[in-house]
Amino acid sequence: MKPILAEIITIGDEILFGQITDTNTQWIGAELTKIGIRTVRKSSVGDQKDAILAILKEATERADLVILTGGLGPTKDDITKVTICEYFNTTLERNPEALAFVTKFFESRGRPITEINAKQADLPLNCTYVPNDWGTAPGMWFNENETIYVSLPGVPFEMKNLMQYRIIPLLQKQFETPTIVHKMIRTVGIGESFLAETIANWEDALPAHIKLAYLPHFGQVRLRLTGTGSDPVVLKQEIDEQVEAVLPLIQPFVFGYDDDELETKVAQLLSERNWMLATAESCTGGFVASQITKYAGSSRYFVGGVVSYSNTVKVNQLGVQPETLSQFGAVSEQTVREMAEGVRMKLGANVGIATSGIAGPNGGTPEKPVGTIWIACSTEKQTVARLLKLGPYREQNIQNTTVQILNLLRQTLLDEK
Amino acid sequence: MKPILAEIITIGDEILFGQITDTNTQWIGAELTKIGIRTVRKSSVGDQKDAILAILKEATERADLVILTGGLGPTKDDITKVTICEYFNTTLERNPEALAFVTKFFESRGRPITEINAKQADLPLNCTYVPNDWGTAPGMWFNENETIYVSLPGVPFEMKNLMQYRIIPLLQKQFETPTIVHKMIRTVGIGESFLAETIANWEDALPAHIKLAYLPHFGQVRLRLTGTGSDPVVLKQEIDEQVEAVLPLIQPFVFGYDDDELETKVAQLLSERNWMLATAESCTGGFVASQITKYAGSSRYFVGGVVSYSNTVKVNQLGVQPETLSQFGAVSEQTVREMAEGVRMKLGANVGIATSGIAGPNGGTPEKPVGTIWIACSTEKQTVARLLKLGPYREQNIQNTTVQILNLLRQTLLDEK
Repeated sequence: MKPILAEIITIGDEILFGQITDTNTQWIGAELTKIGIRTVRKSSVGDQKDAILAILKEATERADLVILTGGLGPTKDDITKVTICEYFNTTLERNPEALAFVTKFFESRGRPITEINAKQADLPLNCTYVPNDWGTAPGMWFNENETIYVSLPGVPFEMKNLMQYRIIPLLQKQFETPTIVHKMIRTVGIGESFLAETIANWEDALPAHIKLAYLPHFGQVRLRLTGTGSDPVVLKQEIDEQVEAVLPLIQPFVFGYDDDELETKVAQLLSERNWMLATAESCTGGFVASQITKYAGSSRYFVGGVVSYSNTVKVNQLGVQPETLSQFGAVSEQTVREMAEGVRMKLGANVGIATSGIAGPNGGTPEKPVGTIWIACSTEKQTVARLLKLGPYREQNIQNTTVQILNLLRQTLLDEK
Repeated sequence: MKPILAEIITIGDEILFGQITDTNTQWIGAELTKIGIRTVRKSSVGDQKDAILAILKEATERADLVILTGGLGPTKDDITKVTICEYFNTTLERNPEALAFVTKFFESRGRPITEINAKQADLPLNCTYVPNDWGTAPGMWFNENETIYVSLPGVPFEMKNLMQYRIIPLLQKQFETPTIVHKMIRTVGIGESFLAETIANWEDALPAHIKLAYLPHFGQVRLRLTGTGSDPVVLKQEIDEQVEAVLPLIQPFVFGYDDDELETKVAQLLSERNWMLATAESCTGGFVASQITKYAGSSRYFVGGVVSYSNTVKVNQLGVQPETLSQFGAVSEQTVREMAEGVRMKLGANVGIATSGIAGPNGGTPEKPVGTIWIACSTEKQTVARLLKLGPYREQNIQNTTVQILNLLRQTLLDEK
């Protein structure tokens, strides 16, 4: 079967000038890969008509699918729509459906719709209107010269939702793509290279049509198996068998599959036990709580937390002993244990987790260099503490500590089944 | 003066398939902008000879400078060097200088140099060798058909050092570049389209050599002025005058310039007053605290916070009156005021901020639909509360609420100068 070739084009001077990171193209490339469409080129051009016309012409010659993001805002510097009109030799017309949508969007926010907003409902005559439930700039679908063109807003949140819920299904209808089956094994607590050594023999024995990719991210490594073939049932079975084969080698590090997240896994374990969680955070500064509450319904298993940045708060809000702080310091096993126990009891939770460390870049000492971080998990039965020795980078340390404390919580919950 | 036009090309399947984020192009684009070189296109292609030859040909027609990164590793799938040879119709030859360098690199690490490593010293005959002190793949500089080509390893750390210490100086010698001056005005609390209408006349009157761009992001809009000319002093003055001219129209929404962030601005205002901040978060679930503590040194102005997800925590940790909760509910002006006052007093801070609302997607009622969020800021002198009517999306609501509460804090701090 002839592969479907795609090009991704991002439009905006701010990308060329390096003022924003373009995360859209990576995300789109990954999504297209999942449905068996091969991205052959990614391009970024500025908000200039000629540049956009040129890349459209080139991409048309190379690809079956051209996805554009950006330049759809209502302001003067966003010229994608008029340029697309020129390219297809057509004109803009106010789309009643789109106008009703934009009007509703602003009404729902108690704001009047201005002419500039209304302009967002002006669409090229040859496009299929793709409603954007997540913002005011509509998506557009074109089918011209045996090529599919998709134009999406550049705001990642809007672009992602439009792709996921509207465009991907349309693409799957449009193109006959090979069957691709993905299976993700999600691990935590083991580095990429150690993982690779552990499963080397299994990896070497994989059949040619099943590919393995290591996707490491902040203390977690996702193993992605991608199988290509024709019969989805057979393919899925082959992949499941490979997972069965590798699992015994890495069991303790596997916390889930596919879309599982540490947070959702922990949420599930807490719910099964009807347990409530409380957090006490020093060096993570609220990031652990924010990761837990990112998920709807978290109030069912999360009672709340304390960000104890100052020692006074550690003492008054968490009941840490002043002697413990003076004798061992805030970054110590003793303190982090009292924080975890304290938050569990003070907030009336079944389990309490705590972090205390030197996130950096400053504040390190010879005995406690930057990256020295203590974490603890406390239940009625036990309090477990662990020392992390991380690097010099603040953001990484906060992210890594959050992964480690969530994993410690997961292990504790499994212990106390 | 004719502007110098650049194209940036990244090579690697892993970029097209979305397996890694390409941070190189953003960084290179920003560096080139600083020295007045205008990036007109960024492209990513896979590790295929034809794709690389094609983009080289295209870029040559468009640009005075072509920067390539990636595909220089010693492994088989890295084919940049041989492809460049084919493009320039030349051959690889082992460069003694480069060989000595690679040999030294491995010796210094107590490892013997293998033939695969030695191959890294094979360079196209027409290139100028650019030593890489940070790795084993050398940089290459070509001057052909009135175009400068630079080939660099894809490893960000090596690429950045090579650019900064070797390539940028060479470029500045090579090209007589125009002066480019950027100025960013950072606003909060006004939407892109409303901002555009407010400053429409000013925008229309901008001289041709000063361009304006709107960069919206979660309740904030950055206005970027980009001036191109010859005399940096004159240009800077012209741009400053434009800023002066537009400021009166948007003053209440402007919180800073260039790299200012709401968090750093608030940090500055707190530090100036020697004030300590405390946070009480319900619907934002710790995100506000995590944004504040993202910055090193935040312990100097942030005492800590409480994530009061359950009402019990609101009562016990923040001192919210049970009657207030039963009479008005957790999502109410009365509750959020008591949260802000409570956290300020209980944690011994000078100013307390609080959020309470329905982040969604569930939990809405006819009177209080999803997106109904109260925020409050409390000092010894006053407690100010505001009602936000946001959308149905949890993540957006958390992010937007955080921007709004930080802005309310900023305004309160300015009030109490």
